[in-house]
Amino acid sequence: MTEERHDILRGPLHVINLGVEDFADSLGKQGSDVISVDWTPPAGGDTDLAALLDRLKGCDSPNDRAVEILVSAQPVWEDVAPAREAIPGMDEDTILHAGPPITWERMCGPMRGAVIGALIYEKRARTPAGAERLARSGKIRFDPCHHHGAVGPMAGIISASMPIFILHNAHAGNRSFATLNEGLGKVLRYGANDREVISRLRWIERELAPAMKAAVEDAGGVDLKSIMAKALHMGDECHNRNVAATATLIRTLAPHLAKGVKRRAALERVSRFIAGNDHFFLNLGMPACKAAADAAHGVRGASIVTAMARNGTEFGIRVSGLGDRWFTAPAGNVEGLYFPGYGPDDANPDIGDSTITETTGVGGFAMGTAPAIVQFVGGTVDRAIAITREMLEITWAQNPTLTLPCLNFAGTPTGIDIRKVVETRITPAINTGIAHRLPGVGQVGAGLLRAPMAPFEAAVRALAENDS
Amino acid sequence: MTEERHDILRGPLHVINLGVEDFADSLGKQGSDVISVDWTPPAGGDTDLAALLDRLKGCDSPNDRAVEILVSAQPVWEDVAPAREAIPGMDEDTILHAGPPITWERMCGPMRGAVIGALIYEKRARTPAGAERLARSGKIRFDPCHHHGAVGPMAGIISASMPIFILHNAHAGNRSFATLNEGLGKVLRYGANDREVISRLRWIERELAPAMKAAVEDAGGVDLKSIMAKALHMGDECHNRNVAATATLIRTLAPHLAKGVKRRAALERVSRFIAGNDHFFLNLGMPACKAAADAAHGVRGASIVTAMARNGTEFGIRVSGLGDRWFTAPAGNVEGLYFPGYGPDDANPDIGDSTITETTGVGGFAMGTAPAIVQFVGGTVDRAIAITREMLEITWAQNPTLTLPCLNFAGTPTGIDIRKVVETRITPAINTGIAHRLPGVGQVGAGLLRAPMAPFEAAVRALAENDS
Repeated sequence: MTEERHDILRGPLHVINLGVEDFADSLGKQGSDVISVDWTPPAGGDTDLAALLDRLKGCDSPNDRAVEILVSAQPVWEDVAPAREAIPGMDEDTILHAGPPITWERMCGPMRGAVIGALIYEKRARTPAGAERLARSGKIRFDPCHHHGAVGPMAGIISASMPIFILHNAHAGNRSFATLNEGLGKVLRYGANDREVISRLRWIERELAPAMKAAVEDAGGVDLKSIMAKALHMGDECHNRNVAATATLIRTLAPHLAKGVKRRAALERVSRFIAGNDHFFLNLGMPACKAAADAAHGVRGASIVTAMARNGTEFGIRVSGLGDRWFTAPAGNVEGLYFPGYGPDDANPDIGDSTITETTGVGGFAMGTAPAIVQFVGGTVDRAIAITREMLEITWAQNPTLTLPCLNFAGTPTGIDIRKVVETRITPAINTGIAHRLPGVGQVGAGLLRAPMAPFEAAVRALAENDS
Repeated sequence: MTEERHDILRGPLHVINLGVEDFADSLGKQGSDVISVDWTPPAGGDTDLAALLDRLKGCDSPNDRAVEILVSAQPVWEDVAPAREAIPGMDEDTILHAGPPITWERMCGPMRGAVIGALIYEKRARTPAGAERLARSGKIRFDPCHHHGAVGPMAGIISASMPIFILHNAHAGNRSFATLNEGLGKVLRYGANDREVISRLRWIERELAPAMKAAVEDAGGVDLKSIMAKALHMGDECHNRNVAATATLIRTLAPHLAKGVKRRAALERVSRFIAGNDHFFLNLGMPACKAAADAAHGVRGASIVTAMARNGTEFGIRVSGLGDRWFTAPAGNVEGLYFPGYGPDDANPDIGDSTITETTGVGGFAMGTAPAIVQFVGGTVDRAIAITREMLEITWAQNPTLTLPCLNFAGTPTGIDIRKVVETRITPAINTGIAHRLPGVGQVGAGLLRAPMAPFEAAVRALAENDS
């Protein structure tokens, strides 16, 4: 019975290939049965980083605490007020912007465009040239929204008179802030600043903001987490798709607007404006995420990311256990779908605080629940689901309060662990809009990208230093 | 090189098993590699039926025509008026009901309960006993909604004074009708008929209907297909889950309600009522489907189903090429999730015209796009997707205007072909609410079932006779 003896090279080969796919491919072509395991050495083979990661085992228990705070957040929209009254540290000479700190000199086109628009809106200048002179003069203090409990989509510009949504995290007690969403197309946050943009901002201040204030007061606050949880069951990922959350917000507000707004013509205009903007909810979803992330910030030893933000020049992160320090790298380029007449050459690099959504587990991290989003940002449905699964590899937990029906009601991947990012070489997935690189133009598309690796590596080094 | 000669019993066996799984299971247990093909003989091995199916090849081209009409429908909600003015053939002595024709004597409990409620609402009786005497007296004509271009969820009762949504199919020119949805819980359509139910019906007539009429007139009509297409991208299957469609409807109507309703208190009540009912859109979605199905009815030789409906006693279908004839069987029992305190013993058999949604390719046929619905009707997400795929086997086409993101934007399975149902033994999947079997109680749950096979077989026989 010698022919029955096991001869590894005589029977069909069953091979398990670890890492580099080329070996598997060659064997596959020769007809062998190959199972390919997608494996890379920790930290991409960087032995110094791998050694640092080994030293950061102590983050586990602080991370449990930070993520517990994150998922327990109860963001409630409570009020509307001008930025100068709502936002701590805000004054007439301050302009807040998206992303990590930046000077006028290094600002990208759309952010400069939005600053110019804000100075005209504030009547600090009458022309773009005058506004630019003032911006350059040193009389204006530029500060990140993130340093004031605020977040802003795209350029993220907030000036003193702008009406602000005020949120309260009923779990941790902190507050967060954002402007009211202006709609799509030529809008300040994409760097547009012409008469149409400015007069819309004035209407928001004069009519929309008082209506929203009356409605939210009559409602006794609006539970934003509940709306987000529902929207995730209705195909929104709560960053680039807000159509269900916006409709649910309108449904929630309608009776309170009816009661709170005295003049029918105003109510009609306000209803039409909100109903006409698929992204109206974004400026409530973002501060809802900020309220959660800020609460989870400052847990000693935690390696959880509490901010990812871009100013259009740089991408930056902050980490719960690393204080107020930003870790930055040049902002990336977005791969996306462009509006007719525009292409990649028109695109500004990645910009905006809207990555606060990914920071807390929605947006790109929840793409798998929003198959219809691929029509807006590109890609395929299978890829969207794969991205959500991949994000589970770099997050500390799943949020039991924000679930994804398409993935059998799995919780959103929540709490980016810088150690896992560095170890797996998987960086956070981001959905985003694309601004034109020149001031004054506006949105030109939407798409996907990955965060750069460098800030995560720098943060791991800093955390290991703190630890030593 | 004799050892390389192919010896079927020496190398590992690769077996393909057709039909009965037992053979595959036995081989599988012996370690063989078995591909099991899920195969049954046509018409379940009934050679007479199989022969009839062979004779019905001529349906193909009429079916193309019928389904083209079905998918081209453009249902627009245009107006609101009392049933006696809106619905052709409606008068003070007529009560319309769900499903195929039925007499008072054979009506189930919830349908009797709703008839009693309607007669009290119409002031034709002051007590349930009086209403019952009148219903039994022969003075009231009972007629199916379906015979009047109308559809009604659950008991589907329509009486002369009830306000009616009037829809126009802008493609085929026909009209369709339904009442305004009353909300959940103790409501007429589930057979409840106490003071609370009647006074809500009066409020609907007095305040809600005029508000809806003013809003739709100001809007110049509301395109319902567009709302359904969006809702299918937002996790509704448009039968038992209408949460996205309802929110989208509110978003669409809000500015028009603000303009059209003069009194703020009325606007507030109307907004609160609509916003408080996840199923408000159902009574617009159903007639939207009816407008499409009626247009596709009457195509000579077509084997496409144009109505599936249940009166709580019988389930019935109508077929495009078979005129006004109903093919019926006893109504089935629903497998579902029950509200606390209720169970299968409380359930009435399957009831309502809401299967008009499945008839035109949404509802149970579109479950794969609505993973969150399994929380309401039971089952798993994978099963929901499998059901949609299965319905492709019994439908003539996919609707390119109603697509399903979860299934890579496949069109809804549209146009049930009675030949395919009989050939494959796969009957239509239905999502539905569950009414208590006694008059006056209301909804007790929601769930899933399959249509019975007998009406489809009878229709195949009738079509083959017509053909001979």
